[in-house]
Amino acid sequence: MSREHVFNFSAGPSVLPESVLRQAQKDLMDYQGCGMSVMEMSHRSKAFQEIFDAAKAKFKKAMKVPDTHEVLFLQGGGTLQFAMVPMNLIEGGTADYAVTGNFSGKAAKEAKKYGTVHLAADTTPTGHDRIPTQAELQLSQDAKYFYYCSNNTIYGTEWQYVPETAAPLVCDMSSDILTRPVDVSRYGLIFAGAQKNMAPAGLTVVVIDKSLAGRELPITPEIMSYQTMIDKDSMLNTPPCWCIYMLSLVLDWLESQGGVAGMEQLKRARAQKLYDYLDESDLFIARALPGSRSDMNVTFRTPSEALDAEFVKGAAERGLLNVKGHRISGGMRASLYNAMPMEGVDALLSYMKDFEVKHHV
Amino acid sequence: MSREHVFNFSAGPSVLPESVLRQAQKDLMDYQGCGMSVMEMSHRSKAFQEIFDAAKAKFKKAMKVPDTHEVLFLQGGGTLQFAMVPMNLIEGGTADYAVTGNFSGKAAKEAKKYGTVHLAADTTPTGHDRIPTQAELQLSQDAKYFYYCSNNTIYGTEWQYVPETAAPLVCDMSSDILTRPVDVSRYGLIFAGAQKNMAPAGLTVVVIDKSLAGRELPITPEIMSYQTMIDKDSMLNTPPCWCIYMLSLVLDWLESQGGVAGMEQLKRARAQKLYDYLDESDLFIARALPGSRSDMNVTFRTPSEALDAEFVKGAAERGLLNVKGHRISGGMRASLYNAMPMEGVDALLSYMKDFEVKHHV
Repeated sequence: MSREHVFNFSAGPSVLPESVLRQAQKDLMDYQGCGMSVMEMSHRSKAFQEIFDAAKAKFKKAMKVPDTHEVLFLQGGGTLQFAMVPMNLIEGGTADYAVTGNFSGKAAKEAKKYGTVHLAADTTPTGHDRIPTQAELQLSQDAKYFYYCSNNTIYGTEWQYVPETAAPLVCDMSSDILTRPVDVSRYGLIFAGAQKNMAPAGLTVVVIDKSLAGRELPITPEIMSYQTMIDKDSMLNTPPCWCIYMLSLVLDWLESQGGVAGMEQLKRARAQKLYDYLDESDLFIARALPGSRSDMNVTFRTPSEALDAEFVKGAAERGLLNVKGHRISGGMRASLYNAMPMEGVDALLSYMKDFEVKHHV
Repeated sequence: MSREHVFNFSAGPSVLPESVLRQAQKDLMDYQGCGMSVMEMSHRSKAFQEIFDAAKAKFKKAMKVPDTHEVLFLQGGGTLQFAMVPMNLIEGGTADYAVTGNFSGKAAKEAKKYGTVHLAADTTPTGHDRIPTQAELQLSQDAKYFYYCSNNTIYGTEWQYVPETAAPLVCDMSSDILTRPVDVSRYGLIFAGAQKNMAPAGLTVVVIDKSLAGRELPITPEIMSYQTMIDKDSMLNTPPCWCIYMLSLVLDWLESQGGVAGMEQLKRARAQKLYDYLDESDLFIARALPGSRSDMNVTFRTPSEALDAEFVKGAAERGLLNVKGHRISGGMRASLYNAMPMEGVDALLSYMKDFEVKHHV
């Protein structure tokens, strides 16, 4: 099945803008007449340094990152951040964690190796079907930071508000970064794996309030010290050059599409179409509760696992790829990241309606 | 300057085989008619799993990895391994380190955070101009492992023998992996950043004796546990998919060129041409001592820094890129990794001879 007949709903790594891929393909053998692929450039070369600086400047512009904060391009994904955050920020004290899904749960578990974890919220008992309200958050007195994951890809929930806390906010934005305006000044640290809205897998973007760096535990590996990476401008060692180049191209595309404000409009519109239909459907059931629903990952199911499987199979035959839900949650999931065009949502909706007509009891 | 007029002598990231880049370019928009780029594939998809499994199988075949050992595809480069090795293997005890260059020095420094480091050798006093002999190695009684870096890119030295030690060998082969046959069974652990002989930057390949895994310190991040990564087949989290795909293509090319045995012949021949000339030259001076010289990174200089600078400038004008030495060692460096054709060496040699005629006093 060729590219023009496919919509890729993968939860990550995910669809990239077609124009970005075309540019990467065009430049692949010889970047701007320098005689080398970006994949072959020394990370210390002038040509690569320009790519690096441009990517960083574009990211800062898109996110309106204030001068109090630094942008880092790291490796290891969100999973390395689960350890890096407490190693650098917990200082042997206590941190508040809101566990609203699989990845915030993993982060809380990892942090226990380096300090005391206080669960400010835990939606495990109800299968992570919603986001706690501000009033429900149980904040501890002297927390070094408050940690949450703004969008839960597996369960299809998303924080619709920014928590009010005395402690600095640390947020895993892996699945909704660059999809809406964010007041970066309210955050101590933001991190995101690139493979959903930014670039191919292998790059982690960190935005850190510089005043929080330099407090790492003595057992922190040099490469995992935010202060060292700030001092070295992310180049203590060889960075993931190709991913940084791809991010730079994606940020050009993002700007041409109206930036994060443009993405926010689109994200709301895409998801709303699906939720409106799900709430009316007699066959499909939305997984997440209203008020907590994710614009990025719409999760739903039919009344039976057999029918779910049939739906997923039929979707693939129509070129609607990767709509199977995560193995933990089952059912279906449509991931609607920045590069998903409205045509993809319309095609999915059309298939869902056909499927419901065929299977309505 | 277009690709056909350039030879890229970068120490890393480095030149990749042209046929590999062409294949990557061809497949970039749509991998084998699946409607997606490799950069857009879920790492849990069948299509990517096949790429992953193929890359691993080809690597095991090329390196003749025995069943006692596991191959891991990780992130973070050699620098993360500097911490990951002691976190997993030192068990609060002592490890022997042979410091023969910048990166083994960094590794030894990092290991001190997790145990006791005994310097089995240290060539710092003579500017890392040679590799210690077996007889010179001062091995401690109960070392958990013996650590060395088989090729020093900055100083242009390479171990011509495998150390005999009671403790398991741990080797940083970042700059000479896949360039010669290696008896993997003699090693407890081998690691290598991909960006010299294997793939674009962002992938670290680890080969570990499975019996050494599972001894990590309690403060080890989950993602840095070799045992966890063995159990998860390197997919605890999203791996650097594009780099793994590129490695797979490079391994196809490697096999077509006679595998590691073919590479070894070429590597000897390439370097010998340059060293033979350097030893005869009245202008150029080889940096490393005979018996310790690297086939991968030939380091040399003229009698003056001004002349070095002129040489580097003139080289670039001829399309001989990145021959400037590392800032630590100065002078010049020609990095001759697997993808460097003999024509590149001949072009460099021709320029060196012209330069000597012009500048001979």
